[in-house]
Amino acid sequence: MFRKLQRIAIRQFHRNAPNLLDRNPIVRTPIVDKIDPRTKAVEGGPEPSYENVVSGYSISTHRETLTMLHGGVLPEFKIAYESWGELNEDKSNVILLHTGLSGSSHAKSHSKNLHPGWWEKFIGPGLALDTDKFHIICTNVIGGCYGSTGPSSVDPLAKNGERYGTRFPIVTVFDMVRAQFKMLDAMGIQKLHASVGSSMGGMQSIAAAAMFPERVGRLIAISAAARSHPVSIAMRFAQRQVLMADPNWANGFYYNSSPPHLGMKLARTIATITYRSGPEWEERFGRVRANPEEEPSFVPDFLIETYLNHQGEKFCYTYDANSLIYISKAMDMFDMSHPIPTKDAVLGSQEESPNCSKASALEKLQKGMSTIKMPTLILGVQSDILFPVWQQKEIADCLRSGGNERVTYYELDTIYGHDTFLIDTVNVGGAVKGHLEMDY
Amino acid sequence: MFRKLQRIAIRQFHRNAPNLLDRNPIVRTPIVDKIDPRTKAVEGGPEPSYENVVSGYSISTHRETLTMLHGGVLPEFKIAYESWGELNEDKSNVILLHTGLSGSSHAKSHSKNLHPGWWEKFIGPGLALDTDKFHIICTNVIGGCYGSTGPSSVDPLAKNGERYGTRFPIVTVFDMVRAQFKMLDAMGIQKLHASVGSSMGGMQSIAAAAMFPERVGRLIAISAAARSHPVSIAMRFAQRQVLMADPNWANGFYYNSSPPHLGMKLARTIATITYRSGPEWEERFGRVRANPEEEPSFVPDFLIETYLNHQGEKFCYTYDANSLIYISKAMDMFDMSHPIPTKDAVLGSQEESPNCSKASALEKLQKGMSTIKMPTLILGVQSDILFPVWQQKEIADCLRSGGNERVTYYELDTIYGHDTFLIDTVNVGGAVKGHLEMDY
Repeated sequence: MFRKLQRIAIRQFHRNAPNLLDRNPIVRTPIVDKIDPRTKAVEGGPEPSYENVVSGYSISTHRETLTMLHGGVLPEFKIAYESWGELNEDKSNVILLHTGLSGSSHAKSHSKNLHPGWWEKFIGPGLALDTDKFHIICTNVIGGCYGSTGPSSVDPLAKNGERYGTRFPIVTVFDMVRAQFKMLDAMGIQKLHASVGSSMGGMQSIAAAAMFPERVGRLIAISAAARSHPVSIAMRFAQRQVLMADPNWANGFYYNSSPPHLGMKLARTIATITYRSGPEWEERFGRVRANPEEEPSFVPDFLIETYLNHQGEKFCYTYDANSLIYISKAMDMFDMSHPIPTKDAVLGSQEESPNCSKASALEKLQKGMSTIKMPTLILGVQSDILFPVWQQKEIADCLRSGGNERVTYYELDTIYGHDTFLIDTVNVGGAVKGHLEMDY
Repeated sequence: MFRKLQRIAIRQFHRNAPNLLDRNPIVRTPIVDKIDPRTKAVEGGPEPSYENVVSGYSISTHRETLTMLHGGVLPEFKIAYESWGELNEDKSNVILLHTGLSGSSHAKSHSKNLHPGWWEKFIGPGLALDTDKFHIICTNVIGGCYGSTGPSSVDPLAKNGERYGTRFPIVTVFDMVRAQFKMLDAMGIQKLHASVGSSMGGMQSIAAAAMFPERVGRLIAISAAARSHPVSIAMRFAQRQVLMADPNWANGFYYNSSPPHLGMKLARTIATITYRSGPEWEERFGRVRANPEEEPSFVPDFLIETYLNHQGEKFCYTYDANSLIYISKAMDMFDMSHPIPTKDAVLGSQEESPNCSKASALEKLQKGMSTIKMPTLILGVQSDILFPVWQQKEIADCLRSGGNERVTYYELDTIYGHDTFLIDTVNVGGAVKGHLEMDY
């Protein structure tokens, strides 16, 4: 009311003496590069639990070269892993759990790391991954930053103890899987009961089943894709560009100076938009403003803006910028079209798909996955904009038309978008448990 | 083949002498802040025509204050406009055409500006907006940068000829419309045959019909919204953050130094993702790589990446950064919920909606649009992710339940997403022509 009267007064005044008008104040603008890891979380929705995991995992060290699909070489490599449930005598009860982009090996809390893991409620006695029955192993991927060899690891060939930075070779999902199976070799695990993964973990899971069909008993891929489509590539491209535009990124050699926190924050802001769905945000944030008593300005204003800001700020401290770039690129490049690499990538480099018809593209995809004949569960979420449900159907259709008669395909109607696999213990958990424990 | 043999050789060699291994080369990274306005356009799809319009328009100058809804004041203001077709004697054949965010008054070529306009094929004799029948006026909005008063205009109250920058007051869609009607007043145009607009132009069109119901004969809103939803806000928030993070933005006072071209490029990269659709990009780009003979790296690699890069680079030179921030914020704030401002914004400030139930929110929306009783055409596109089709239905439903018996609502199945209104002369054009020329 006071404001209204004030405005009327100002207006009257200006009518009489417009030249005495005060200049408008400067609109409030955000300090975009302010990074405050303690920003208060926006309440009201389930958020996945991601931590900067620096301990509590085991390391499988491989003193052998790993030649990557696109040419670079790791002279040696380490894989960080955690496990739950007892390994049985003939080592036949192993489930290999693959992570998405931001996930570490810490899927579930245990005595060495009490923080809740990213699949905390899916793993345990009687749960979806039943630790009374199975020995679950989760690894951090090659290229990651949670203990496995990645761009932030020391380059053993550098003289001064320098980290790899962008000397780390381009890594593919196939390389990640080959490294995991070298770890299984070292552990004497010949055959998995199942390969399980969501998002990029689902890509790994599919690749594992196709490359090592005799070593994968059952396949589960949730909210994944048999090949990335242009919209997903576009969304990840925008994130990488924003990150690489931060001068602190310094072409990937920032380990002895300030890391590109601002670029990471902005990249994660974009990513967060792709992880959830319109219906969830309608319900959770609507058009509610964070500080309704303030006039609008350019600082985070609507609740959805403060939420995105917070998600961005949080991520800076838990993830390595170069890992984000390498792994997001690996997701873009993922394509199960024939010919896929065999166990030995050096002898089976993937050809580039020429611009071909839709039918022949599908045929190549079917052929690339033709070794996947084990029982398979494909889960998709109708509100997922990053890995849309038609991509799940594409996987299931290709497998079925390729002759796999034990393909289960479910579409979920949850509102949590791509993040559903982290949240929905009921719908996701039930399907997973059923598939792992059913007698086929 | 050579590469394969080379890799095998390298590998053999390393097995024998791993310590003599060469370090991996640095992966190629993009020069993200390279801005080359001459980057070759990616062929294969229809692109809207946006130019940096600096001449060929007329100016309506208003030497009176314009007090904005959220408090700031323009001591005087100018509106740039262009027109096509002859004004009839009683000035009853006027169509006011409203623009989207990036649009200028240059909707159609004419003798003073021969460049094709953004609705080139929709305006002309016998076309959707028939210049044999109607006098079409298109304005550049207040806050824009194509001739109307905006953040890049000189602040008349500054002593040193400084531009407004972020001293420009927060502008709303309602302010844009009030300014347009002051222009119509000055032109002696009492009643419009129709108010027509797409995207933010559709928001203006709806606002005009609600604020000035006795002056708007027919309403057309295409791919618009009665209120922005959190996903659209999120997508625009990300763009603004990325832009404001560019140090060259300098809190909006960059007019005497280097403009934030990099921020603009990155913002437009994100925006472009929201303007099109998955199906179009599947068809147009698929997974084709720009330079298949090169090994993957972090430079724009897939065709979709080079396309986004090009769209971003092009935009830097045609649009003002502050206008992007102000107008994108105006879109976020747009809400037709009761109470909407009356003709005189000073006396009718919009209250903030508290967090209320869905039913009561819809009721407020219906009430806010209750003056819209003229024949109305609402068009939506099923593949639009920025203004999803449910938002079009929301407009139509609210108008119908509010008692408007002449609401036409069409959903289009084109693959062009939000950009459909710029491209699809057949489906959009036909509906528009029918609505404008039918005897109600």
